[in-house]
Amino acid sequence: MDGFHSGWFFENEDGMTVAIEVDEILCEEKTKYNDIKIFKSTKFGNVLVLDGVIQCTDRDEFAYHEMMAHLPLFSHPNPKKVLIIGGGDGGVLKEVNKHSSIEEIHVCINDERLIELAKQYLPKLSVGYKSSKVAVNIEDNVEQFLEKNTQSYDVVIVDSIGGHNNEILKKPFYEKLNKSLKNNNGIVCAFAGCVWTDAGHIKELKNTFHSIFPSVCYAFGLVVSCFVGGQVGFLLGSKEKETNFEEPPRVIKEEDVKEMNLKFYNKETHEACFVLPQFIKEELQN
Amino acid sequence: MDGFHSGWFFENEDGMTVAIEVDEILCEEKTKYNDIKIFKSTKFGNVLVLDGVIQCTDRDEFAYHEMMAHLPLFSHPNPKKVLIIGGGDGGVLKEVNKHSSIEEIHVCINDERLIELAKQYLPKLSVGYKSSKVAVNIEDNVEQFLEKNTQSYDVVIVDSIGGHNNEILKKPFYEKLNKSLKNNNGIVCAFAGCVWTDAGHIKELKNTFHSIFPSVCYAFGLVVSCFVGGQVGFLLGSKEKETNFEEPPRVIKEEDVKEMNLKFYNKETHEACFVLPQFIKEELQN
Repeated sequence: MDGFHSGWFFENEDGMTVAIEVDEILCEEKTKYNDIKIFKSTKFGNVLVLDGVIQCTDRDEFAYHEMMAHLPLFSHPNPKKVLIIGGGDGGVLKEVNKHSSIEEIHVCINDERLIELAKQYLPKLSVGYKSSKVAVNIEDNVEQFLEKNTQSYDVVIVDSIGGHNNEILKKPFYEKLNKSLKNNNGIVCAFAGCVWTDAGHIKELKNTFHSIFPSVCYAFGLVVSCFVGGQVGFLLGSKEKETNFEEPPRVIKEEDVKEMNLKFYNKETHEACFVLPQFIKEELQN
Repeated sequence: MDGFHSGWFFENEDGMTVAIEVDEILCEEKTKYNDIKIFKSTKFGNVLVLDGVIQCTDRDEFAYHEMMAHLPLFSHPNPKKVLIIGGGDGGVLKEVNKHSSIEEIHVCINDERLIELAKQYLPKLSVGYKSSKVAVNIEDNVEQFLEKNTQSYDVVIVDSIGGHNNEILKKPFYEKLNKSLKNNNGIVCAFAGCVWTDAGHIKELKNTFHSIFPSVCYAFGLVVSCFVGGQVGFLLGSKEKETNFEEPPRVIKEEDVKEMNLKFYNKETHEACFVLPQFIKEELQN
């Protein structure tokens, strides 16, 4: 069972289904790139669905977006220029915007309409687009965009939950991404799937990262209640082999947790998110 | 939508549903205490459901059972006698059995039939019942059982996923449980719900623990892919105020992780599981 049925939205993946109760369907639109659905749920606020996959809910979006943004940004000594690939809903952008050191944020995305719909129906997530630091680049070909921007970015965040055959998950893409990073301390953070359902994929992507970046780490990340499998992780890569993601150069202070209005990320969650359950630790070691 | 429909089993809780695809229904039986369902799923092995709530699947049962058993047992300097309340499927018992120091394990449960069905349909989970160290006590009234066994146990594990109004979650129960612990280093570990859906309940139970035990800690625990909310935590309490659950007196060695065939618990997951996302850290501080 998939999609809207009897007052619920269903997402089905490999023998398991997660469903969220629907209060009101706000938008159903097929663009050239995405099948976009946005609905108001009865308990979790507004929900964004792309190509049948729940992306986030108002209730728990902060878990995913805070970790995806702050893990790489606090692992960099002084991030000034950041690229977000994908992330049209604005959730990661909202978090990147909280770093006062950052002067410029580029968003590279193919689907302009997704941003418009996020601005209309997901105002809490898309608030970051109002910032004067942000430049949105609508691009059909992200690899071409990366080639035009060599040695440009301190941090690149790949917020794309595409299928496993998506080109964005392959080695040529990450080689070009590597070249778009500044030579000093350049860091990438990419969505890397769920340990329960995607262990093989995580391993493959980690090996790709190892073939490109001198320092690599898989972050177990977090639990997100609305995801099938309840968890998503991230792969972090750095151009500096001395980068130790588990002991970042900048440690967030308690007052900054408040100041930045963080609900998931803090000093301890940064450190702890690299700890792996034994089965996935062994899987990724081999 | 709840129960079996169209080849799936559905569990619905507060605006969210998790469903598992069914290969074959193995057992549906109502006893005096439980509505027991056991089915073979298409992807996760056999699944146990009590009163409509998914308890565990063969695929990920180890996450819950390992953490529930090994967090308190490694926090005790020398556990010899253990009581498990509930846990009829045998999953926690299987893990407790792996500790060679333990001489005696009591299981206290009301529903004998649940144990019989677990032995029949969940052989991987229920294997521990074969051990000569195990004594099963079928008891209608667990509080009476505790009163008959004062100062008896090094560790008591409460593996009961009852509703929030269940008496087993209330103060008089934990006061009797406290008396059943030996005075030296007695430790309790109890199921304590999901941070996304049960924050208020966790706080209430933590306050109850604080009113009884000198040392208390909430363990964020783990992610379990088949649970609504993707996470469950535990409350740990000790009779010794010096007990530091985060730095346990016995640290598991790498070779024992292999020897005990652990798939989730290791030195690092023990330490990291006490780290809380900011929102629940604040909720439990107040």
